[in-house]
Amino acid sequence: MPQLRLLPRGAWAALVSQLLRPPRTACTGVVLCHSQVAEAVLTSQLKPDQEKSNFILKTPKGTRDLSPQQMVVRKKILDTVVSCFKRHGAKELDTPALELKEMLTEKYGEDYLLIYDLKDQGGELLSLRYDLTVPFARYLAMNKVKQMKRYHVGKVWRRETPTIIQGRYREFCQCDFDIAGQYDPMIPDAECLKIMCEILSRLQLGDFLIKVNDRRIVDGMFAVCGVPEGKFRAICSSIDKLDKRSWEEVRHEMVAKKGLASEAADQIGDYIQLRGGVSLVEQLFQDPRLSQNMQVLEGLRDLKLLFEYLTLFGINEKISFDLSLARGLDYYTGVIYEAVLLQTPAQAGEESLSMGSVAAGGRYDGLVGMFNPKGHKVPCVGLSIGVERIFSIVEQRMKAFGEKVRTTETQVFVATPQKNFLQERLKLIAELWDAGIKAELLYKNNPKLLTQLRYCENMGIPLAVIIGEQELKEGVIKLRSVASREEVAIKRDNLVAEIQKRLSES
Amino acid sequence: MPQLRLLPRGAWAALVSQLLRPPRTACTGVVLCHSQVAEAVLTSQLKPDQEKSNFILKTPKGTRDLSPQQMVVRKKILDTVVSCFKRHGAKELDTPALELKEMLTEKYGEDYLLIYDLKDQGGELLSLRYDLTVPFARYLAMNKVKQMKRYHVGKVWRRETPTIIQGRYREFCQCDFDIAGQYDPMIPDAECLKIMCEILSRLQLGDFLIKVNDRRIVDGMFAVCGVPEGKFRAICSSIDKLDKRSWEEVRHEMVAKKGLASEAADQIGDYIQLRGGVSLVEQLFQDPRLSQNMQVLEGLRDLKLLFEYLTLFGINEKISFDLSLARGLDYYTGVIYEAVLLQTPAQAGEESLSMGSVAAGGRYDGLVGMFNPKGHKVPCVGLSIGVERIFSIVEQRMKAFGEKVRTTETQVFVATPQKNFLQERLKLIAELWDAGIKAELLYKNNPKLLTQLRYCENMGIPLAVIIGEQELKEGVIKLRSVASREEVAIKRDNLVAEIQKRLSES
Repeated sequence: MPQLRLLPRGAWAALVSQLLRPPRTACTGVVLCHSQVAEAVLTSQLKPDQEKSNFILKTPKGTRDLSPQQMVVRKKILDTVVSCFKRHGAKELDTPALELKEMLTEKYGEDYLLIYDLKDQGGELLSLRYDLTVPFARYLAMNKVKQMKRYHVGKVWRRETPTIIQGRYREFCQCDFDIAGQYDPMIPDAECLKIMCEILSRLQLGDFLIKVNDRRIVDGMFAVCGVPEGKFRAICSSIDKLDKRSWEEVRHEMVAKKGLASEAADQIGDYIQLRGGVSLVEQLFQDPRLSQNMQVLEGLRDLKLLFEYLTLFGINEKISFDLSLARGLDYYTGVIYEAVLLQTPAQAGEESLSMGSVAAGGRYDGLVGMFNPKGHKVPCVGLSIGVERIFSIVEQRMKAFGEKVRTTETQVFVATPQKNFLQERLKLIAELWDAGIKAELLYKNNPKLLTQLRYCENMGIPLAVIIGEQELKEGVIKLRSVASREEVAIKRDNLVAEIQKRLSES
Repeated sequence: MPQLRLLPRGAWAALVSQLLRPPRTACTGVVLCHSQVAEAVLTSQLKPDQEKSNFILKTPKGTRDLSPQQMVVRKKILDTVVSCFKRHGAKELDTPALELKEMLTEKYGEDYLLIYDLKDQGGELLSLRYDLTVPFARYLAMNKVKQMKRYHVGKVWRRETPTIIQGRYREFCQCDFDIAGQYDPMIPDAECLKIMCEILSRLQLGDFLIKVNDRRIVDGMFAVCGVPEGKFRAICSSIDKLDKRSWEEVRHEMVAKKGLASEAADQIGDYIQLRGGVSLVEQLFQDPRLSQNMQVLEGLRDLKLLFEYLTLFGINEKISFDLSLARGLDYYTGVIYEAVLLQTPAQAGEESLSMGSVAAGGRYDGLVGMFNPKGHKVPCVGLSIGVERIFSIVEQRMKAFGEKVRTTETQVFVATPQKNFLQERLKLIAELWDAGIKAELLYKNNPKLLTQLRYCENMGIPLAVIIGEQELKEGVIKLRSVASREEVAIKRDNLVAEIQKRLSES
């Protein structure tokens, strides 16, 4: 079952969609003929038949279109996520997809290599945003905002490589919630974990667990294991890969590539096997080496308080203190967390295994200060929901259960049994639209009645209004229930009211 | 009144926002020290105090953040637009922000210069999408879809220059609705115009007019005026600039820069002054020169039919057949249109003048074929709503009328008059959240009651629940109406039901 191993962000999603969708056209390098463009463009006409077999019709590597069916599913997920963010009092913010390149430097550790840069076409050097957190911090610093609870739903871009094999997306949607401001310890942090629990519960993704650690505990652990301070972030990045690589691989990277002493690596290897609840916090207070480290003690004290609040929120059983959780990004300074699904309903019966993170976040008290000329800090804590993976899980489950989605919301179809009735259909449908009723007709002068009624059935449109010579003469319209096929004649003047009544009843 | 001249896309919006917002930091070229990044990154820690005065804190030129207040306004506009698209039976589609560079070439005429390219970091050559139309055509061709009515809301990017002076945005939101498929003539085209009317009416932007023309009439007019066929698109691009430049400037560009004979330019100059309703269509059928041109005749025949349908839809008075309308993009092949606002309510009393386009579109029957190896065509017609300008107008109007917006939806605030009551507040708020109630508290161990109640008033939160020693003992909670300041004691078990009742009544 290799696909049930710990998989990286997006991997599971892609595996599912690879299984479910027709194979994509293979990607080959395509070289453009730029030089011809400038010359051709002033005189260009549409040339349907030339120079087209040269290129492969596809979206860029690691990106995809979302079909109407997928958009309905996606929307449902986003609605659940956003309504939870609003339930917790968050405001919405939007920032550009583009940031000045310099805004993104020194924020992401080794992952800076994954940032998409724009071509220098004159003017500023720009990059596509890598996450929604750094733009949020930039916004706070730029506008001198000291307190803010905001959410942000938007796309981010990462040059993950290889894409297809590991199945990561290079363009994907994030849903972020963050609390900025100086507050009493661990109250906002606990709320972030509560939000993750609420969202994962309401999405009905099956059982989940939230791993929690603290960056100060990670760093303190490194210190007592003999990692030189200058290597903290690099070793942290290695540990972060434990969800997709074996300990042996990670250890090799730390020792062979990053020059860590093998004794230090082995000591880390012992600690990162520890996981548990608040009792593990108590246990580590007694650890002869860790308890000598001030950073560790601060982290443990905060985690203890955090567990107290989580218990009051009734979610402590969903939380696991896990020393192997490191989080790769540079900017975390305190508590960090990552939610993993234990199994999905579709896999009930199979072995219960972790299937990769669907939400993550942590505290970053220094990031805003990096943008402030005087280094003024605004403490922040937040979380990000990994929509792509959740989307794949929900999509797969819907297919497994044969659930169908309507991709339109059309309520009424305007039909006629007669030829040369387009004018009356157009007048009638305009009345419906103007009354706010969702209505469609066929774009044909003389469609067959059967074709029209079949369209209603195929599209799940509940009502049809039928107009013909007879109806026109009598000043009525036939109103048909598509499901029951019952028809009644309604006075034209009463039609809108009758339709609205029927729709409100259903 | 230079700002009331015909302004380009985004210009009016920017003027308004320039007037209303604090001045932005000036843009200066900032050169990054790329070489240092790779070296520094492995050992980087958060450095709040170093190297920060080097850069100016800003978003990229031509882009902006949207504050929570702005997001509420934006959301309201998008809801109106999207609900209209749904009323007309459209499905939603999403495509990546990135496209293969070659997908965008030879689609935009001279505007190809405005496309943002990504840096070649290995792999495919990519660009940011310039509009939502070409990605839609690419989607149809790629998936061999022959019929589809879809909407798409998303950002697009254009390297407009100069940005600040003309006030254009380089990143902006578009809302597109398109109908793809082979249908009887002008029915989908008329629906697109109906949609534009519905949206502009419902947004209450004041009086508007939709200019209509046909690309075949434009081309036929060029032909009879003696424009060589190879220069059609280039001259079309020049004519398209008439909404932001004078005829003299446009004429100069056509003659001096694009080598058009001055007699041809003058003949065009005569024709493009013509505008009117269906009577102008009839008049041009009689024009001795235009009526000799097959393309013109086809265009006029379609416009005549279009006006018939627009009359049935009750919107013919909003439509003006205007020979100066050219639309710059290469891909249009038939009817084209552009909606302009005549005045906004905020400017009532001032001279009624056109203030630039807020929606536009047209028929593009060849675009999908450009992506098909065999050139198979899928006729399309669609429209795009210019959200940025509409947004500025609505925003300005709200400010003019002193309308305030709530940026959160919080329904209940959890307060206490007593110290050391955080635990009870946390338990209580978790109950509310779990019941789906939008609730907040202050992230403090011991906030003052006055501070808490003031927060409710400032944020417009309608209800507060208050818990203290006394309430805890009696098993009740005080429920306070923030506006009336009335308080009643409610049994804890009944609290959620009582809150839900109060909220449903308000």
